[in-house]
Amino acid sequence: MEKRQTDLWFTEYQTPDMRLGLRIDTILVNRQTPFQHILVADSLENGRFMALDGAIQVTDRDEFTYHEMMAHVILCAHPEPRRVLVVGGGDGGVVREVVKHPSVEKVFLVDIDREVIDTSREFFPGVSVALDDPRVEIKPMDAIEFIRSRKEDFDAVIVDSTDPVDFAEGLFREPFYRDVCAALRPGGYAVGQTESPFAEPEILKSAHDAMSRVFDDVRLFWGVMPTYPTGMWTYCTGCKQAPDPSVPRSAVPVDTRYYTEAIHAASFVLPPFLTEILGDDKGDD
Amino acid sequence: MEKRQTDLWFTEYQTPDMRLGLRIDTILVNRQTPFQHILVADSLENGRFMALDGAIQVTDRDEFTYHEMMAHVILCAHPEPRRVLVVGGGDGGVVREVVKHPSVEKVFLVDIDREVIDTSREFFPGVSVALDDPRVEIKPMDAIEFIRSRKEDFDAVIVDSTDPVDFAEGLFREPFYRDVCAALRPGGYAVGQTESPFAEPEILKSAHDAMSRVFDDVRLFWGVMPTYPTGMWTYCTGCKQAPDPSVPRSAVPVDTRYYTEAIHAASFVLPPFLTEILGDDKGDD
Repeated sequence: MEKRQTDLWFTEYQTPDMRLGLRIDTILVNRQTPFQHILVADSLENGRFMALDGAIQVTDRDEFTYHEMMAHVILCAHPEPRRVLVVGGGDGGVVREVVKHPSVEKVFLVDIDREVIDTSREFFPGVSVALDDPRVEIKPMDAIEFIRSRKEDFDAVIVDSTDPVDFAEGLFREPFYRDVCAALRPGGYAVGQTESPFAEPEILKSAHDAMSRVFDDVRLFWGVMPTYPTGMWTYCTGCKQAPDPSVPRSAVPVDTRYYTEAIHAASFVLPPFLTEILGDDKGDD
Repeated sequence: MEKRQTDLWFTEYQTPDMRLGLRIDTILVNRQTPFQHILVADSLENGRFMALDGAIQVTDRDEFTYHEMMAHVILCAHPEPRRVLVVGGGDGGVVREVVKHPSVEKVFLVDIDREVIDTSREFFPGVSVALDDPRVEIKPMDAIEFIRSRKEDFDAVIVDSTDPVDFAEGLFREPFYRDVCAALRPGGYAVGQTESPFAEPEILKSAHDAMSRVFDDVRLFWGVMPTYPTGMWTYCTGCKQAPDPSVPRSAVPVDTRYYTEAIHAASFVLPPFLTEILGDDKGDD
C-alpha cells in the first residue's frame, strides 16, 4: 500500500455554483471576530492568503493587481491628491499604494474590524508595510458613521469593501455614495470595487446606477484579479466637479507591477458585453 | 431530517494545487477518444461546457472572449486576410469568428480529433455554427503533418491548441513555429494561445522565446477568459514581413461582445509583471 499524504484544501464558494480551491499546508489564523470570520493560510499555488467570511481578500501572488488599480487610477487622475480616505482595506494594501504618491499628506484608513488590521500586520508584512507611515491614521470604526461628519475634506475616497453582504452592504448604496460625494473636495474622485461582470453583473449594475445618481460623472474601468471570482474585476469611479478620470494628470509611482500610465487608459476601454450590463452607451465603440 | 439534494460537481485541477469547481446537473458526453477524454456537461454557473482531458475548453458563458481575441486581433491587423489556417479549435469557435471577415475566402480547420468536431456540432450549435460555411474545409489530422507541405499559403495561422501536454506539446515548439512561418505568405501573421502568466509563466516564456527565434517580430497581447486558470490569458503573435500587429488595418466585425478596435490596441498594453516574465523590455512604460 502506498504511503498516504495529507490532502488539505481551502474552498471558496465564489457563487453557490462555482468554487475555487487552493491546496494549503498551514493554517495560521482561523477565528471569528465580532464582524466576520478570518482565515489566514499558506497555499502552495498563491502563497499566503487571507479570507474573510470565506472569500479571499489577499493572496501574496496577486494582491498587487487589485491594490494598484484601486489606488493609482484615481490618484493619478487627480493633479495633486493630498488627503485620501480608504474605506475598508484593513489589510493595508491600498494604503501601501496610496503613500507612494508624494503629494499625499494624510490618509485615513477606516475599517470596521480592528482584527483584520492586526492580522495583516502580523501575517502580511509586505501588504501592511505602510500602516505605520506617519501620514496614515487608522480609525477602526464603521465608515458609514465616519464619513457623515466629513464635508469637502478629501481629494480621493477609495472604497475597498468586501462583497456587499452584511455590514458591507451599505457601502454599495446611494445614501453612502451621497456621503462620499459630500466628503470629497471639488475636483475629487471616488472609486469602489464593483465585483465581476461575469459572476455578479447585477451588483455591478446596481452600484453603477446608484453612483450615477450621485456623482457628476461615473466611469467604469477593469483589470484582472486571479483569485477573485472569474479573474476579471471592475471598479467604478465617481467625479465631483472633476475631469475625465481616464486621463492621468499626476506622476505614476515607479515601483508598480500592474499599473502604468498606458494600463490606466487601457483599463477604461470596455468590451461591449460590459457596456451592455450597464445598459447605456458609455462604452467604447 | 431534511430532504437531501444531489450535489454533483465537475472539478478541474488547473494546477496540482489549484482547482475550479462547477456545479452541474447533467452530463451529456463522458468518453475517451483515441486522443483524449471528452466531457460535456451542463453547469448551473456557466451553462454548457466541454472539457478535454479534464481542462475546460469552452463554456457557453465566456467562450466569446477567447475566440474573439484568437481570431480578430491578427485578422484585423492584416489589411485583407483571404486564406486562414486554424490549428486545433475543433469546437469551431475560432472558425465562427474567422468567417465574420468578408475578405476571407478559405479557412482550413485542422484538428487531430474528429470527435471534438462532431461533439461540438451536436452539443454546441452556437459555437460550431460556421463549420458548414462553404469557405471552411475540415481536416481531421495532425496539424504538424498538415502544415509541412504548405509554403506561403496563408495570410493568418491561428493555433488554438489545448495545453502543451501530450500530442499538443509540439505546437509550442520551435520546429512547428518554423513550419507555421514557412506556411505564411509575406505580410502574414500567426497567433497562439500562450496560457496564464500567473499559473504557467514558464510556458508563456518558452513559447514566446521559441517564436522570437522564428518570426520577424513577436508581440504579446492579453485578455480575460474566466474559466481558464486565473482568468487572465495571453496570446503571442508572430509577423512574417508584416507591420506591428497592435494596429488594426481592416474593418472590425460588428457583432462582437469582447473585441473592438480599442480593445485590440489596449490588449497589447502589458502590465510590468508580464513584461518581466518575458525577460525583455518589450512592454509598455
